[in-house]
Amino acid sequence: MRPSGRQLGDMRPVTIETGVTRHAEGSCLIKVGGTHVLCTATIEDRPPHFLKGTGLGWVTAEYGMLPRATHSRMPREAKKGQSGRTQEIQRLIGRALRAGVDRVALGERQIVLDCDVIQADGGTRCASITGGWVALRLAFDKLMKAGIVTSDPMLDHIAAVSCGIYAGQPILDLDYPEDSEAGVDGNFVLTGAGRLVEVQMSAEGATFSRDQMSTLMDLAETGCQTLVAAQKAALA
Amino acid sequence: MRPSGRQLGDMRPVTIETGVTRHAEGSCLIKVGGTHVLCTATIEDRPPHFLKGTGLGWVTAEYGMLPRATHSRMPREAKKGQSGRTQEIQRLIGRALRAGVDRVALGERQIVLDCDVIQADGGTRCASITGGWVALRLAFDKLMKAGIVTSDPMLDHIAAVSCGIYAGQPILDLDYPEDSEAGVDGNFVLTGAGRLVEVQMSAEGATFSRDQMSTLMDLAETGCQTLVAAQKAALA
Amino acid sequence: MRPSGRQLGDMRPVTIETGVTRHAEGSCLIKVGGTHVLCTATIEDRPPHFLKGTGLGWVTAEYGMLPRATHSRMPREAKKGQSGRTQEIQRLIGRALRAGVDRVALGERQIVLDCDVIQADGGTRCASITGGWVALRLAFDKLMKAGIVTSDPMLDHIAAVSCGIYAGQPILDLDYPEDSEAGVDGNFVLTGAGRLVEVQMSAEGATFSRDQMSTLMDLAETGCQTLVAAQKAALA
Amino acid sequence: MRPSGRQLGDMRPVTIETGVTRHAEGSCLIKVGGTHVLCTATIEDRPPHFLKGTGLGWVTAEYGMLPRATHSRMPREAKKGQSGRTQEIQRLIGRALRAGVDRVALGERQIVLDCDVIQADGGTRCASITGGWVALRLAFDKLMKAGIVTSDPMLDHIAAVSCGIYAGQPILDLDYPEDSEAGVDGNFVLTGAGRLVEVQMSAEGATFSRDQMSTLMDLAETGCQTLVAAQKAALA
Amino acid sequence: MRPSGRQLGDMRPVTIETGVTRHAEGSCLIKVGGTHVLCTATIEDRPPHFLKGTGLGWVTAEYGMLPRATHSRMPREAKKGQSGRTQEIQRLIGRALRAGVDRVALGERQIVLDCDVIQADGGTRCASITGGWVALRLAFDKLMKAGIVTSDPMLDHIAAVSCGIYAGQPILDLDYPEDSEAGVDGNFVLTGAGRLVEVQMSAEGATFSRDQMSTLMDLAETGCQTLVAAQKAALA
Amino acid sequence: MRPSGRQLGDMRPVTIETGVTRHAEGSCLIKVGGTHVLCTATIEDRPPHFLKGTGLGWVTAEYGMLPRATHSRMPREAKKGQSGRTQEIQRLIGRALRAGVDRVALGERQIVLDCDVIQADGGTRCASITGGWVALRLAFDKLMKAGIVTSDPMLDHIAAVSCGIYAGQPILDLDYPEDSEAGVDGNFVLTGAGRLVEVQMSAEGATFSRDQMSTLMDLAETGCQTLVAAQKAALA
Repeated sequence: MRPSGRQLGDMRPVTIETGVTRHAEGSCLIKVGGTHVLCTATIEDRPPHFLKGTGLGWVTAEYGMLPRATHSRMPREAKKGQSGRTQEIQRLIGRALRAGVDRVALGERQIVLDCDVIQADGGTRCASITGGWVALRLAFDKLMKAGIVTSDPMLDHIAAVSCGIYAGQPILDLDYPEDSEAGVDGNFVLTGAGRLVEVQMSAEGATFSRDQMSTLMDLAETGCQTLVAAQKAALA
Repeated sequence: MRPSGRQLGDMRPVTIETGVTRHAEGSCLIKVGGTHVLCTATIEDRPPHFLKGTGLGWVTAEYGMLPRATHSRMPREAKKGQSGRTQEIQRLIGRALRAGVDRVALGERQIVLDCDVIQADGGTRCASITGGWVALRLAFDKLMKAGIVTSDPMLDHIAAVSCGIYAGQPILDLDYPEDSEAGVDGNFVLTGAGRLVEVQMSAEGATFSRDQMSTLMDLAETGCQTLVAAQKAALA
Repeated sequence: MRPSGRQLGDMRPVTIETGVTRHAEGSCLIKVGGTHVLCTATIEDRPPHFLKGTGLGWVTAEYGMLPRATHSRMPREAKKGQSGRTQEIQRLIGRALRAGVDRVALGERQIVLDCDVIQADGGTRCASITGGWVALRLAFDKLMKAGIVTSDPMLDHIAAVSCGIYAGQPILDLDYPEDSEAGVDGNFVLTGAGRLVEVQMSAEGATFSRDQMSTLMDLAETGCQTLVAAQKAALA
Repeated sequence: MRPSGRQLGDMRPVTIETGVTRHAEGSCLIKVGGTHVLCTATIEDRPPHFLKGTGLGWVTAEYGMLPRATHSRMPREAKKGQSGRTQEIQRLIGRALRAGVDRVALGERQIVLDCDVIQADGGTRCASITGGWVALRLAFDKLMKAGIVTSDPMLDHIAAVSCGIYAGQPILDLDYPEDSEAGVDGNFVLTGAGRLVEVQMSAEGATFSRDQMSTLMDLAETGCQTLVAAQKAALA
Repeated sequence: MRPSGRQLGDMRPVTIETGVTRHAEGSCLIKVGGTHVLCTATIEDRPPHFLKGTGLGWVTAEYGMLPRATHSRMPREAKKGQSGRTQEIQRLIGRALRAGVDRVALGERQIVLDCDVIQADGGTRCASITGGWVALRLAFDKLMKAGIVTSDPMLDHIAAVSCGIYAGQPILDLDYPEDSEAGVDGNFVLTGAGRLVEVQMSAEGATFSRDQMSTLMDLAETGCQTLVAAQKAALA
Repeated sequence: MRPSGRQLGDMRPVTIETGVTRHAEGSCLIKVGGTHVLCTATIEDRPPHFLKGTGLGWVTAEYGMLPRATHSRMPREAKKGQSGRTQEIQRLIGRALRAGVDRVALGERQIVLDCDVIQADGGTRCASITGGWVALRLAFDKLMKAGIVTSDPMLDHIAAVSCGIYAGQPILDLDYPEDSEAGVDGNFVLTGAGRLVEVQMSAEGATFSRDQMSTLMDLAETGCQTLVAAQKAALA
């Protein structure tokens, strides 16, 4: 039933390659099917303005798409400014990752995650969160190895997956053809322990019931377990 | 336990006054406790560019806050541009209201909802959706009375309420003191029939379980029934 | 002869309601006929940059219109930036109000007046000045009651009214149908004692004589006396 | 009493040199004392959008200052956008000049006046109007000589001069040292026949009486006669 | 003498991998030492506005850097707009590539080259031109295979290399440590036949002689031959 | 063969008038044929941020064109922001002039050159450099006369001229008709001693050989000698 021939609860193949860029304190290239995102982590010695003197650290994210990451070329945001969609996505990535971080242990510094989509096929914000977590983990490792941070600021894995209702059926990990047709779709962010971090489910032309919501959450739990396993494999 | 003395499942008083501005095709002032939002609906004869020739209509929304709607004054967005938060909110309002609309019945025209917060005390985006629906209903009435639209484009009521986990307890309809302290909070948009339109739940310093999610959805269902009743009373 | 049936020297009904918003240090809703403006005053502890160390205070103003304050919807300035007209108006409001203020008595702090037009029917800048003065008066009262300022910084009332030449006749307090047809129109700002603060008279398709200018100034004097009385009534 | 040694009613020397730039349809360099403004008129075949099909023409103006036209260098507006002051000035120039134009005789075309201040010493907007009129006159001559326009669209001369109250005395044609100290100042635009086009008088730290206003208008009438004579001399 | 141990006339290793992204009509990843640039070509059916009706095609380019392509993170241009440096580079890339194109053969369509720097170590604009040519070649192949274009629009190879004077010695293909210290540096763009397309040589703290200029041109010729060979190998 | 009737190696008449504006620390109006540029130098007491504490000075430039400097009117950059072309030109002017300056002798201060084109007929960036040098020289004289700078920061003259290949022939100092038709054109910046500072040669529809490049450099040397003589004459 799915255009790709996948079963309702099937994810696409996931690979995460670390150390893909020379300068960043942490980096990876995550591929979830045809969606490829380059994630880099930058350590900044100083926290953002609003945290000075609090002893707390911060994790923030920025998101971009190369103009021809998509089927037809999109105008470059450097020429017209960040769209509302871009800002919404990068706020989500930062918020999701902060849920996995002990900001006292991090101390007064900031980690900036850059998630740049090299190729898009649906689920770019979820891949950014899942890959961003790996880049963040590597940056934390660097801080700890250097003795700058003594207690691990990472509380747990953070991973994200999309779900939706397509042709009346709840499905996991939508690719672009599914995403553009789904009546309901959204994203779930979970911790390694399976706790909920973020739930975003939107009707686009169809409303949904609590039973359907429950099925989608089941799918999301399975999907995030797969992603956490891929994170562990990449770091092993 | 709540700063206002409310019970966990209590909403604040809700009033919706219609016809509050002379020029708009539909308007209301919604007050949810100390949150006051002026909602106006404007009918435009032409649909947005991407719908020309499709026979479909569109509903969109814009959101703003007067600079001193808040406890301390916020810079005027006309001077610095719309923030990512503002764009995220107005995208939500438009998407939520479209879920209640039969865009074929509406035909090739656009309704623009302007939701301007006169005074803020938490839950401004939910009040905007609930009040925006009333302004939209009035604009549809005008189109039908004029014979421009013959079949009612409104499928059902749309209402929205915030929920969250405050001091470890699930609560309904957060005011600003609760909103700024809640470990988890978010918004639910439901139809009059109780179908889900939008679920947005975010951890801010605390993750949450599926059981808690379920309790929050129970609260949201009750809250939206109250809001739908207020919509009906305002239009009676 | 006037579309509204008013006599040449008649003003529209004026009401000023104070205390209309919870957070501002001073606020009022002024209604001059169908023109409704919400005015709030915000006290800032610090003066603008260019006054640091001078002992002098400052009063500034910002002006906005809700998109559907007008007959047809206007694009939201938050999306496209403030127009030249908006900037010209807010510069006028600030300049006019400063003429009533003893900036030494105010001391090194700033009052920001926000004048937001809820509904427009001509004369919005004049209503903003007249209402803005009331919000400013209330903010000064608050500063004095708190003992932060010991000598009253308010020197006199400030009020503003529009005049113009419509169908060849000098008239007072133009509404929108008159404003859009007048060959000459402008604004007068006066003190409670009747001193001139600002005179702005512009030909739009017709020039005018000194005799006509003199008649317009007579009208403006009468109009401002009415407005000062309304200010006093609102504060009584 | 005046820093320059001028009498209260003295203007600075005025020269207007025409034909100063090769490409424009009309141009002049006006010098009013130390204030030098280059004015060019450009004829555009098409009227602005809002006049299409009306048979009416339009005259508009843009104003700029070279960064080092002033005593200390000002940031280039090309780098930061036009200030509110600049927009206010160019709206005034366009409005003032349109008062001298028969827009039916002009027909559906637009004249753009560019007024660029090469050196500033007070009164730049008045010099722009007076010089702009000469450039406009030359452009109209060109249109008539080419037979594109058959009836002269110019109704009368337009000239502008500043007045103010300096050290308690009404004075004419303020230079920069006077302008920066005046308690009241403003601009008058008059026709060749002495009719009023624009009156803008603002208190800056001092209010003024109707008697003072009357004296200022007397000064302005004299000043504009001098300027009209200079316009005639330049075109002779 | 060179930090990398290279001889004066040595280039860094060059690899060009084609077909690296799914959606673009032509793409490659070029690596010149530590400088990695992703180049994609997009075919647009319509020429730019200024070429409509001329029968001529156009080739344009846009350039960007991922924020952490560099040693320390650079602010994202989507947030602050394109810098003058970025605009200068992308104008150069487009101009250089157009020199290799028969715009009549291309016909009324546009090719947009996106050159995005994944990792930077000097010479990013040269790598963009050299890699951009490969992406352009692939897009032309696609147009010809589809029969949309019948005569090959490519006239010759285009390749670019940097040269400079470092520690008093003319060197080829500067890496970042050399680039930041060189007294003179610049870029040469040549055709496959060795014709000059673009010469840009700038003194930064040292001027240079015609003899030195001649040596730099010799180096550039050798370098571009190497790059053309790499282009041929990538396409073989 | 040249539209103006000039010989291949002929420059247009050059005049440089100094002291043309009252406020600037150095100024001149340079005319190279029909290209007229007003150049002013402003001395700022503080260096740019990135040089604080280094003991080094800085020279920077900004470039603009009056809207009707050109044959048809160009939109004012203050309304739409500086184009890439403008930024590229002003970076070139600053870079070129810095090559003539001993930044240690200048000390921690900045000179800002403003080059504003009053009338354009090709070669505006070259005229800006040549005239800018004169304004800079005058500003240095002022610093030395005031004893603020004790050792002359000027190392040598800097002058610039355009060259190109027009109708197959190398020519010197292109005017606008030549510039718009030339297959190859560019700019050379040289010192008084004939050392190269900047070489920028671009193919626009035709490539060029090293022999042609050599001829162009010969022309440029002659042209710059003429310009240096004009600089000396202006300062004598």
